[in-house]
Amino acid sequence: MSRYEFRSPRLFLDAALVAGARVPLNRDQSNYLGNVLRLSSGAPVLAFNGRDGEWRAVLAGRKRPEELEVAEQTRPQDRLPDLTYAFAPLKHARLDYMAQKAVEMGAGRLQPVLTRHTQVHRLNTERMRANVIEAAEQCGILSLAGVEEPVALERWLETRAESGRLLVFCDEDAEVADPVAALQGARPAAAQGIDLLVGPEGGFAADERDVLLRQPNILRLALGPRIMRADTAAVAALALVQAVAGDWTGQ
Amino acid sequence: MSRYEFRSPRLFLDAALVAGARVPLNRDQSNYLGNVLRLSSGAPVLAFNGRDGEWRAVLAGRKRPEELEVAEQTRPQDRLPDLTYAFAPLKHARLDYMAQKAVEMGAGRLQPVLTRHTQVHRLNTERMRANVIEAAEQCGILSLAGVEEPVALERWLETRAESGRLLVFCDEDAEVADPVAALQGARPAAAQGIDLLVGPEGGFAADERDVLLRQPNILRLALGPRIMRADTAAVAALALVQAVAGDWTGQ
Repeated sequence: MSRYEFRSPRLFLDAALVAGARVPLNRDQSNYLGNVLRLSSGAPVLAFNGRDGEWRAVLAGRKRPEELEVAEQTRPQDRLPDLTYAFAPLKHARLDYMAQKAVEMGAGRLQPVLTRHTQVHRLNTERMRANVIEAAEQCGILSLAGVEEPVALERWLETRAESGRLLVFCDEDAEVADPVAALQGARPAAAQGIDLLVGPEGGFAADERDVLLRQPNILRLALGPRIMRADTAAVAALALVQAVAGDWTGQ
Repeated sequence: MSRYEFRSPRLFLDAALVAGARVPLNRDQSNYLGNVLRLSSGAPVLAFNGRDGEWRAVLAGRKRPEELEVAEQTRPQDRLPDLTYAFAPLKHARLDYMAQKAVEMGAGRLQPVLTRHTQVHRLNTERMRANVIEAAEQCGILSLAGVEEPVALERWLETRAESGRLLVFCDEDAEVADPVAALQGARPAAAQGIDLLVGPEGGFAADERDVLLRQPNILRLALGPRIMRADTAAVAALALVQAVAGDWTGQ
């Protein structure tokens, strides 16, 4: 038995969800449910809004689905760990992919950080939000990761310096050393929250690395002896952080 | 300083590499180096064959690159961990992507396993090998992961049953429980090698799960409270296995 029901389509709605509510569908939703999925009145769907948990609902409408009739709650609202995934933006499809992956891994916040070797300097954060929603709809996730506006690396480091949060810096130049032991040792600092930073494909510039290594509460993490593409490193690093200090521990 | 040189193109060659060797380029390689990268005679490249380490070489040829002149070894041959990544094949681009990711994570062998809910039953293993080579070329990897022919789940379980290898079964229905502690506890069994199994998008059928849970040396691994797509689960599970029992431990 799976932890949630897979068969019904899942829909993110920006509206209050409560038993008996009738929520109008916008044109895109109506078109998707009616013309792509070929659903009509009475078909069951699951709805969530990131605040009120997940609800069973049925479609209503004369010809095509026009609204949802909200029935009963299927799962209570959860909370994401206080884990920010900070990253140098990638190009196009790989950025979409990276945002979706970070959501699946349970990041609480996506923070684009601009570095010297960042390939992309203008960023469509609305598109990133759409990717967050799509991944949440597909993967049964109830809480939407926040999407922050891009900020320069130095500026980001200044804003977080006094926060007491652990900075996990994935550094491809770090000596290979037991990453699990390193994360376990940093768990006290992680209690204030974790910022996980993955650099651009070209790596950090030498002076950027110097600034990073002077930050308080920093953990320089080596992800094994091989170089990975940035989107791979994102998933690998999030897996280790979640498994040692996040909500994968079962505690 | 990075662990290897990034600027020169890296080329997989199926030929012996030794100082002074002259290795002819095939038409695709010649075209790629000459017309796409616009390199000409004298340009440096790095070459590897999966056996003899990495070598610095220079291009030679009258008009376009026709052969490589092998100069000196830049890195000795390494070995991949005895880690098989077994997976239900995905469709098209996501299968390419998954093969590339498994290589970046350092899997030693890719084993397609056909299950009840596998979406894809015929598989182009030549294409998978090309993806292995491409990922190795791009990411500075010296040892090529092996690509096995697809096999039915039950048949695969029979062939490996007496091997003494640890079977890490990523089961989305397992109770969420500390995956690092579970892997640490299984390290003695992992000494014989590790087979890591990630299921299809639709999950395993109930009877397949029953058969799996009766296997010797099995570790049923939960990857946190969220459901992930199969390619995401692959990277996450490989990260945990490599960090606890593979070659990311720095030992």
